[in-house]
Amino acid sequence: MKTLEWENNKLKLIDQRKLPDELEYVYCSNYQEVIAAIKNMTVRGAPAIGVSAAFGMALADIGGVDLNKAADEIKAARPTAKNLFWAVDRVLDSENPLHESLKIYDEDMKINRAIGKYGREIIDDGDTILTHCNAGALACVDYGTALGVIRAANDEGKNINVICDETRPRGQGARLSVWEMQQENIPVKLICDVASGYLMSQGMIDKVVIGADRVAKGGIVNKIGSFMVALAAKRFDIPFYVAAPYSTFDMDININDTVIEERDPDEVIHYGSCRICPKGTEVINPAFDIVPNDLITGIITEKGIIDPL
Amino acid sequence: MKTLEWENNKLKLIDQRKLPDELEYVYCSNYQEVIAAIKNMTVRGAPAIGVSAAFGMALADIGGVDLNKAADEIKAARPTAKNLFWAVDRVLDSENPLHESLKIYDEDMKINRAIGKYGREIIDDGDTILTHCNAGALACVDYGTALGVIRAANDEGKNINVICDETRPRGQGARLSVWEMQQENIPVKLICDVASGYLMSQGMIDKVVIGADRVAKGGIVNKIGSFMVALAAKRFDIPFYVAAPYSTFDMDININDTVIEERDPDEVIHYGSCRICPKGTEVINPAFDIVPNDLITGIITEKGIIDPL
Repeated sequence: MKTLEWENNKLKLIDQRKLPDELEYVYCSNYQEVIAAIKNMTVRGAPAIGVSAAFGMALADIGGVDLNKAADEIKAARPTAKNLFWAVDRVLDSENPLHESLKIYDEDMKINRAIGKYGREIIDDGDTILTHCNAGALACVDYGTALGVIRAANDEGKNINVICDETRPRGQGARLSVWEMQQENIPVKLICDVASGYLMSQGMIDKVVIGADRVAKGGIVNKIGSFMVALAAKRFDIPFYVAAPYSTFDMDININDTVIEERDPDEVIHYGSCRICPKGTEVINPAFDIVPNDLITGIITEKGIIDPL
Repeated sequence: MKTLEWENNKLKLIDQRKLPDELEYVYCSNYQEVIAAIKNMTVRGAPAIGVSAAFGMALADIGGVDLNKAADEIKAARPTAKNLFWAVDRVLDSENPLHESLKIYDEDMKINRAIGKYGREIIDDGDTILTHCNAGALACVDYGTALGVIRAANDEGKNINVICDETRPRGQGARLSVWEMQQENIPVKLICDVASGYLMSQGMIDKVVIGADRVAKGGIVNKIGSFMVALAAKRFDIPFYVAAPYSTFDMDININDTVIEERDPDEVIHYGSCRICPKGTEVINPAFDIVPNDLITGIITEKGIIDPL
C-alpha cells in the first residue's frame, strides 16, 4: 500500500484525515486540488508533502499552467516543511516535470530503506522506542523515516516495543503511527503527549526516534511537542535521534529562522467531532517547534548517521 | 458558586465531568457515593477531594458505619493526592465528624485566599502565566490554589494573561481552567499540552503556576505533564511556582515513593465520545508525575512562599 500514487494522470492520495477508521482515497486531477490536499492535511508528513508537490507541478504542466506561477502557489500551501520547496524547485528546474516527479517518487522509497538500513544499527534487541507524530509510511510514499528505522530493526529480528505519543492536536501518533505499527504486528502502546517524561523517569523508554520537517544549522524543526520530548530525553541521557532524508535539509538558513506555521484554532478546539473547551475559546496553535542541536544525538539520513548541523 | 456544599445532610457536588457545557449537580447521601464520585472524577483536584472525603466520613458517621472501615475505603478511592488521607485522618481523630468536616470546608476557603494573598506578590503587571490542569475553584471549595493566585493578582488590578494547557487525557485545563478564567473575564488562551515549550522559547510565557497533589521531600506530584512543563521552564529560566496548602504536604515520605495512579485506558482512547485511535489500542495512562525540586522556584502556601522541601 502506498500513501500516494500516480494513476491515470491523477495523484491518488490516502485520505489521512479519515484513518484509522476508514481507508479512503482522494484523487487530484489539477494542481489546485493538490494544494488543497496539502493544506487540509489529506496528505501530510514532510516527504509525502514533497512528493505530492512534485506531482502537483506535473499536473500544472499537463494542464498548461505557467510553472512559475504554479510553483509559487504550491510553495505557499504550507510554510514549514523543507521538502515542499525542494521538490517544487527540482521539478521547476527539470526538463520533464512528470518524469522528474516519478523520479522523486521512486527515490523516496529507496531513501527510506537506506535510512532504515543505517538507523536499525542504533536499535538494540529489546528496546522500547518512543516516537512523536507520524514519520511513518504515511508521511512518505511508503516505509517511513522514523518508523522505517523501526521497521528495519524489526525486519532483522530485533524485538522492539514502540510507544507512540498521541500528538495533539491532529492525533497523527494515535491515529497513524499506532495503526502502522499494528499493521506490522510490532507491539505498540499509546500515551498522552506529556506522559513521556514520566515514562523516561521510570526507565520505560530506551530511545527516541522522530522525523523532521526541516533540518538546518542549529537544530531541526518537527511536530509541536518534539522539543519537550527532547528536553526530557536529555534529562535522562536517553538517545534522541532524528530520521530525515537530505531533501529535508536546508543549508541556507539557521533553524531559528524557520517559519513556524500557525494553524486553525479549530484543530485544538475540536478533537474529531468533539468540542473540548468552552465555545469561543481563544487558541494558540503552532504546528511545529524547534529541537536545538544540544538535544539531538544524531540524524539518520540515507547516507548514514550524522551529527546535527 | 461552590464546587461542593453540605446541604440537607447530603454532599452536593458540581459534576465536573459535564463542564463546561452543562452545570449539573450530584448529591451523595452516603459515603459509598462519595467514593464513587472521587473515583469517577465527578469531583477532582486535591483540596476538593480532601474536603469531599471529610464529608464522606461525616456521612458514614451519620449512617452508623464503623469509621475505621469507612476511612480505609475512602482512602482507597484514589492513591495519589495527600489531601484525601489528611482529611480522612483528621475526621477520624475528631470528636464530631460533621463538625470537623465543616471546619475543613471553611478552612479550605480561607487557605486559598491566603495562598492568593502571598502568591499575587510574584505576579507582575502584564505577566502571561501558564497553568497546567485545573488548580482552580473547581479543585477546591472555591477560589483555587494556582488560579487563586491569578485571581488575587487580577483583583488587585494587575493585567494578566493566562495560558491553559489542555491537560490530556481528561482535559481539565481546556474544560475547567479556561472556563473559570472566562467567568472572571481574565484573558485566557488554550494550547495543546506540548506547545508550552515552544511558547516559552518565543518569550511568550513569563511564569508558570500549577497546583500539587502531594508535596514531599525532593519534589511535588501533580497532573501528568507537569514535569515536562517544568523542564521547559527551567531551560528558559522561567519561574515555576507550585501553589498548595499544607494539607497537601507529606513530611513522612520522599516524593519518589508516591504511588502514581494508573487510570483507565479508556481515558486516553476516547476524548469525550470520540475515539482517537484504532480499536483495541493498548495504552499507558499515568495520572500524575513528579516535578523534582531543582525545577521548582517556590511553593506558595497559606503561610507564605517557601523553598521546596
